[in-house]
Amino acid sequence: MRGFGTYLFAMSERIANQSGDGARGIKDPSLGWIIAFLFVVSFLGLFSVVPLRKIMIIDFKLTYPSGTATAHLINSFHTPQGAKLAKQQVRVLGKFFSLSFFWGFFQWFFTAGDNCGFNSFPTFGLTAYQYKFYFDFSATYVGVGMICPYIINISLLLGGILSWGLMWPLIETRKGDWFPSNVDSSSMNGLQAYKVFIAVAMILGDGLYNFCKVLTRTLSGLFSQIRGKAGSRTSVSREEEAPASPLTPRISYDDQRRTRFFLKDQIPSWFAGGGYVVIAAVSTAILPQMFAQLRWYYIIVIYVFAPILAFCNAYGAGLTDWSLASTYGKLAIFTIGAWAGSDHGGLLAGLAACGVMMNIVSTASDLTQDFKTGYLTLSSPRAMFVSQVIGTAMGCLVSPCVFWLFYKAFDDLGLPSSEYPAPFATVYRSMAKLGVEGVSSLPRDCLVLCYAFFGVAILINLIKDGLGDRWGRFVPLPMAMAIPFFLGPYFAIDMCVGSLILFVWERLDAPKAEAFATAVASGLICGDGIWTLPSSVLAIAGVKPPICMKFLSSATNHRVDKFLKGSS
Amino acid sequence: MRGFGTYLFAMSERIANQSGDGARGIKDPSLGWIIAFLFVVSFLGLFSVVPLRKIMIIDFKLTYPSGTATAHLINSFHTPQGAKLAKQQVRVLGKFFSLSFFWGFFQWFFTAGDNCGFNSFPTFGLTAYQYKFYFDFSATYVGVGMICPYIINISLLLGGILSWGLMWPLIETRKGDWFPSNVDSSSMNGLQAYKVFIAVAMILGDGLYNFCKVLTRTLSGLFSQIRGKAGSRTSVSREEEAPASPLTPRISYDDQRRTRFFLKDQIPSWFAGGGYVVIAAVSTAILPQMFAQLRWYYIIVIYVFAPILAFCNAYGAGLTDWSLASTYGKLAIFTIGAWAGSDHGGLLAGLAACGVMMNIVSTASDLTQDFKTGYLTLSSPRAMFVSQVIGTAMGCLVSPCVFWLFYKAFDDLGLPSSEYPAPFATVYRSMAKLGVEGVSSLPRDCLVLCYAFFGVAILINLIKDGLGDRWGRFVPLPMAMAIPFFLGPYFAIDMCVGSLILFVWERLDAPKAEAFATAVASGLICGDGIWTLPSSVLAIAGVKPPICMKFLSSATNHRVDKFLKGSS
Repeated sequence: MRGFGTYLFAMSERIANQSGDGARGIKDPSLGWIIAFLFVVSFLGLFSVVPLRKIMIIDFKLTYPSGTATAHLINSFHTPQGAKLAKQQVRVLGKFFSLSFFWGFFQWFFTAGDNCGFNSFPTFGLTAYQYKFYFDFSATYVGVGMICPYIINISLLLGGILSWGLMWPLIETRKGDWFPSNVDSSSMNGLQAYKVFIAVAMILGDGLYNFCKVLTRTLSGLFSQIRGKAGSRTSVSREEEAPASPLTPRISYDDQRRTRFFLKDQIPSWFAGGGYVVIAAVSTAILPQMFAQLRWYYIIVIYVFAPILAFCNAYGAGLTDWSLASTYGKLAIFTIGAWAGSDHGGLLAGLAACGVMMNIVSTASDLTQDFKTGYLTLSSPRAMFVSQVIGTAMGCLVSPCVFWLFYKAFDDLGLPSSEYPAPFATVYRSMAKLGVEGVSSLPRDCLVLCYAFFGVAILINLIKDGLGDRWGRFVPLPMAMAIPFFLGPYFAIDMCVGSLILFVWERLDAPKAEAFATAVASGLICGDGIWTLPSSVLAIAGVKPPICMKFLSSATNHRVDKFLKGSS
Repeated sequence: MRGFGTYLFAMSERIANQSGDGARGIKDPSLGWIIAFLFVVSFLGLFSVVPLRKIMIIDFKLTYPSGTATAHLINSFHTPQGAKLAKQQVRVLGKFFSLSFFWGFFQWFFTAGDNCGFNSFPTFGLTAYQYKFYFDFSATYVGVGMICPYIINISLLLGGILSWGLMWPLIETRKGDWFPSNVDSSSMNGLQAYKVFIAVAMILGDGLYNFCKVLTRTLSGLFSQIRGKAGSRTSVSREEEAPASPLTPRISYDDQRRTRFFLKDQIPSWFAGGGYVVIAAVSTAILPQMFAQLRWYYIIVIYVFAPILAFCNAYGAGLTDWSLASTYGKLAIFTIGAWAGSDHGGLLAGLAACGVMMNIVSTASDLTQDFKTGYLTLSSPRAMFVSQVIGTAMGCLVSPCVFWLFYKAFDDLGLPSSEYPAPFATVYRSMAKLGVEGVSSLPRDCLVLCYAFFGVAILINLIKDGLGDRWGRFVPLPMAMAIPFFLGPYFAIDMCVGSLILFVWERLDAPKAEAFATAVASGLICGDGIWTLPSSVLAIAGVKPPICMKFLSSATNHRVDKFLKGSS
């Protein structure tokens, strides 16, 4: 139900009344237009993925940690009886799967209330915790860290230290000077704006660089193909010469077989391209009917840039397992909102654009994850595509219905006092409000910093490619560095713990680490992932965890003890 | 400074004023009589240990986990360069030593305030925590659990479940019927009395049984020695036939060498016996001068029974690492207090008797621990005894001086509002007050239960010995079962975790577990032990931990959150 709590709900009257700006535009949810909207937008994402598949998985050899973990879990169910190593791997995977599952279960008991439980463990002290430096005991990210290459995890940590350890605290001291001191911490008028926009700038810089690199290589390949009539095997043979991968390539027999299988059953490019254009045309016609504020030329602009951003997001998710769809959505809110302007219903246009953009880029990363799983499990790409079409169609029907059920059942859905508040809806609406006021509403020097980091991202890439494979692999990746800018470095710390475990293990027993590290990581990721199922069931059934593990400063603790003694 | 906070201080005017019963007898601390008192009493303990050494360490082969751990640490500094295994063991020990040390350090940060930190982690929920069922993350007791035989740890857990899981909750439901419902949880008029006295009864039953067993065997050995003129080697040769050990005996070359070394340099029995009698005579003359209420015949009775209780305590400490000196002290408070009666200053007599008893039994267990270390490190017993004499003498001078310093420096020392409150002093004084009122002041059926558990302890021992080695080793030990009666099962859970780790390790890799388990355990115990040093320095310097990791129920957490939001 991604998006229902954010951009869709942000258009509704309920949220508008909360923010007190109903005059800027309202569109209450209704089953009809939501389903139509999702259909148009989601299928567009589906078609934009097809050309990304080969680039991300075969050429760049990106890890897609979640996808890899799922593939290992699936493969483990189909182990040939004879293979002893595979059997051992399955046993290891099963062990860590249950370990991770029960760890998730155990953690749950201590999460009664906000900032409770192991997720809020101030491992490095409370001050560090405020700046999101802590180890949050997430089995998932430790596992992801074990699958991701060292340089990614180090880039993430480096980015986290640069942003949350250095830049944000420094910018915070400019409070009252660079930005008003009375704004909320989540407000786009304050520090939050730096976090979002600098991250986006850096990601765009890296994404654009890599997009151009791929484009040049594709065009030159095409050019030589036409000139030399090299036949249809170019795409396979190019794989061997691909130096662009940020990971050190190592082509085993398994990988060769997978690549052959993956490329055998191709979805034709004309089909993907044609599909994209057709659906883009249809939605350009339909969307302005739904949202009068969303002009047809806005939509065309979105559809021109969407593939680039989808590329960026699929690339980033492949490196680090994080989808930054909401960040790109925010970008759309601001650009389209600013373009439309306050007078022409820019607020609603921005939110609608956000919905379009978020759907495309998140579909891009999610489906490429799935394709990675398919690649590792030797699934037919065409069969996968068909099942994805069916899945997407069902999702477009089922999710709005569930949302509608809740919306009608709970009259207070989305209000802060309700059992199901939608805090992000308000945040999105206020972001859109800011967007329509244009670039000038950004805090001081934010735009300058954005330009700088955009440039830095391209510069780092140039250095990386210029140094060559030998030294270039020690240069951090801007895309990975930018992700903790917005989210905070806590997950980078988890991932570095995973790296550390792997590093020590490799030093102690290299063959065993080689053979079982992925199984361990997959077990950790999947066990934690499966736990979310029963945990959501518990949440829906209204079962509350019994204990809150709280972390208080010495002084606060003293006050709380006094209060508890007084009131008991 | 053991005892200063309890029985000594309980006699003072400060505490008497707090309890409002100065009329029952007061004796304010003063440097002179404290030093004299300690000298007389401590040396008595020293001499009572000598005959215990051989029984506990050679015949019973008790583990003395702390002593064993210390010995491994010491041995590790003197590893012969050639021995590869020994070197590996040292490395393992060092690794776990630092791990345990830093774990202690890490835990410290989260202990700002009462019931904060990992020590109060309600692993099995808050209700279980109230009944002391939780894993307290103590590296020491996990290590102790790895050294102790399985049957000990299981006995401890069984005792914990029987008492805190079954008996105490059941007795609690009788509140208002068996004992007044308005008494404090630490009061000896309530549940606390059952805990203390049933534990003491069971320990005494087991101790008496084993004491009698050893006495019979010693006498029969002596008898046969005199009759057969078997010469002086009996004591060594008897070792091979000793079946009484609760641990399965396994005599390696190392152990044989140690035993020879340990017995070579004996302290003569006539010396120990003579020393005991002389000092007992001296103290019988001196103590009534200090405490007019403590008649000379009380002291003789204490000195007759003290060796039995010292035996019990040394035996219990050897099995489980817990010294129950304070429990025996309480026993002395009650018996002597009741005997003297309220009219003849029974309160002070009880407290003084408590001091005498606690010193003897705790010295017995502590020094036998040290002798175990000496045994494992091939130290000369005579040299150890001499150094212990010197150490005891210094302790008798230094500790009272330090106490005196604090007592004079802080006028409010011992008051509840002070930075150094002495809650136990009040507890001890009220226990003594209860004691003088006699057995009748015990809650209902407490005495009956004591008789029953005394009998059960002897019965279990009879069954254990009757079943023989094969099945007898599966029968739990009453001494071990009784210890959690008073303390709660949390440390038993720690120790069972240690057992579990060892068990799994032995299943996975028996030779490695055999070789390194003791090194790991020693590292865990010593690392945690050494951490207490810097932690006390921090405490004395007034450095408070910065964070409190608190565990609140869901409802309490809600109230606290509201309070914090309201007050900020």
